Amino acid sequence: MYVQRPIAILDSGVGGLTVVREVMRQLPREKVIYFGDTARTPYGPRPAEEVVRFTREIVTYLMQYNPKMIIIACNTATAVALEEIRSVVDVPVIGVINPGARAAINSTKSGVVGIIGTVGTVRSRAYEQALKRLNPNIHVASLACPLFVPLVEQGNFHSPETFHIVEDSLTPLKEIPLDTLILGCTHYPFLSESIGRAVGPGVQLISSDNETAREMSTILQETGKLASQAELPVHRFFCSGDPALFKSIAQQWLGKQIELTPVVWQIPQIGNH
Amino acid sequence: MYVQRPIAILDSGVGGLTVVREVMRQLPREKVIYFGDTARTPYGPRPAEEVVRFTREIVTYLMQYNPKMIIIACNTATAVALEEIRSVVDVPVIGVINPGARAAINSTKSGVVGIIGTVGTVRSRAYEQALKRLNPNIHVASLACPLFVPLVEQGNFHSPETFHIVEDSLTPLKEIPLDTLILGCTHYPFLSESIGRAVGPGVQLISSDNETAREMSTILQETGKLASQAELPVHRFFCSGDPALFKSIAQQWLGKQIELTPVVWQIPQIGNH
Repeated sequence: MYVQRPIAILDSGVGGLTVVREVMRQLPREKVIYFGDTARTPYGPRPAEEVVRFTREIVTYLMQYNPKMIIIACNTATAVALEEIRSVVDVPVIGVINPGARAAINSTKSGVVGIIGTVGTVRSRAYEQALKRLNPNIHVASLACPLFVPLVEQGNFHSPETFHIVEDSLTPLKEIPLDTLILGCTHYPFLSESIGRAVGPGVQLISSDNETAREMSTILQETGKLASQAELPVHRFFCSGDPALFKSIAQQWLGKQIELTPVVWQIPQIGNH
Repeated sequence: MYVQRPIAILDSGVGGLTVVREVMRQLPREKVIYFGDTARTPYGPRPAEEVVRFTREIVTYLMQYNPKMIIIACNTATAVALEEIRSVVDVPVIGVINPGARAAINSTKSGVVGIIGTVGTVRSRAYEQALKRLNPNIHVASLACPLFVPLVEQGNFHSPETFHIVEDSLTPLKEIPLDTLILGCTHYPFLSESIGRAVGPGVQLISSDNETAREMSTILQETGKLASQAELPVHRFFCSGDPALFKSIAQQWLGKQIELTPVVWQIPQIGNH
């Protein structure tokens, strides 16, 4: 039956697990299949055409499980590959940028919104465009934080060194009168404690994870596609890199045992088409 | 062009203006046409079949303006008429119940959610069903507050008497360990200051207005139907009752002059089909 088909969630690594956790919390009946491309993370510094190619490979892999919806839970991939993926599959495809932009517009009172993300996401100006598409009066300040993803992929969330790196990285935003800060990378919610301390209590943090799961819920419900079985689903996880590290981070973040299948890419990982 | 068509918002009276204000804030490019059925407000105590008939009449009236989407900004009408309206028009129809339920699930940590609404809304159990449809583990406590709508329709938002009526009405919820309270009637955000004082700072208030405008934004954007003109739209308002009272409340709430057209129903207002 259509509605019992899984939700496919993909990311460059472990960052998209933040979306998985929110789906489990907000929609516990939905079955998730997750792909973390940990062998090729991070996507942030890569050329756009490479990110598009990697995203297409993962989507092709996940389509064999017949998902009813695809979530691109990676800001870099959303920024450069969302439209192309939408054009090649026949199920709804949701990125993480529109939900975050919408939540920021909902939150801000000053009309000044900050965005932190990878180099690729900030360079794409995708958040700025998404914000101004909804409301042309919003002021936007963007900052790339290239040190954050490696901290998360190493599982280093709460150390004093992490806090110092976070605080130093965010210094350029100190002078800007923003009241809302978009965590424009699905890895960043792992660091939200440090980020919140660094920017202070007057700044509302917007997490893509929460907002994306919520928009997924809206679209599934309004199109009559919510899952309805009584028993809890068993999720499936795939990763292209070190399975032990992925499993450790996933189980710590999700608070439960997971079923993980390592994937070895058959195709060249570096180079042109 | 499709996307420049207006959003039609309808309500039993002035309550749906809270949704209009949120649409103006979140999506300033969207043109709104609003119908307040102030001659026949409140809908809460009326039989379901009468509310369905009134809602159909208003939708028929608004369809002459060729809207791209219909928002039923009345909880009572959403509870009893949403599915029927969906079956008779060929544009998306959004109610206020699913958005409020979704936001409450997103907000609650204790898993105990309160709902206040009209007698009709509470009797329909529509919020309870919507919450459990998304997450079967949520606990729900519902309370009808029939005195609130008349306070709002009279424009009596901030008086000490209003606070006493609100506090007295909410007494039955005092014993329940809820951390989230759905304002299950679009009139109630006018009273949110008093309601917040009565339930205390540990309870997150969920307003249908905000959440419904946000879901409208999600659906318009994901289906490529956001308005895109540069100039600000001129909204249009219709009411079936006293135009001076409607205009006064609308202009106070929206903070701007409005263009109002009184409507005299040609059809019998009381009685059977």
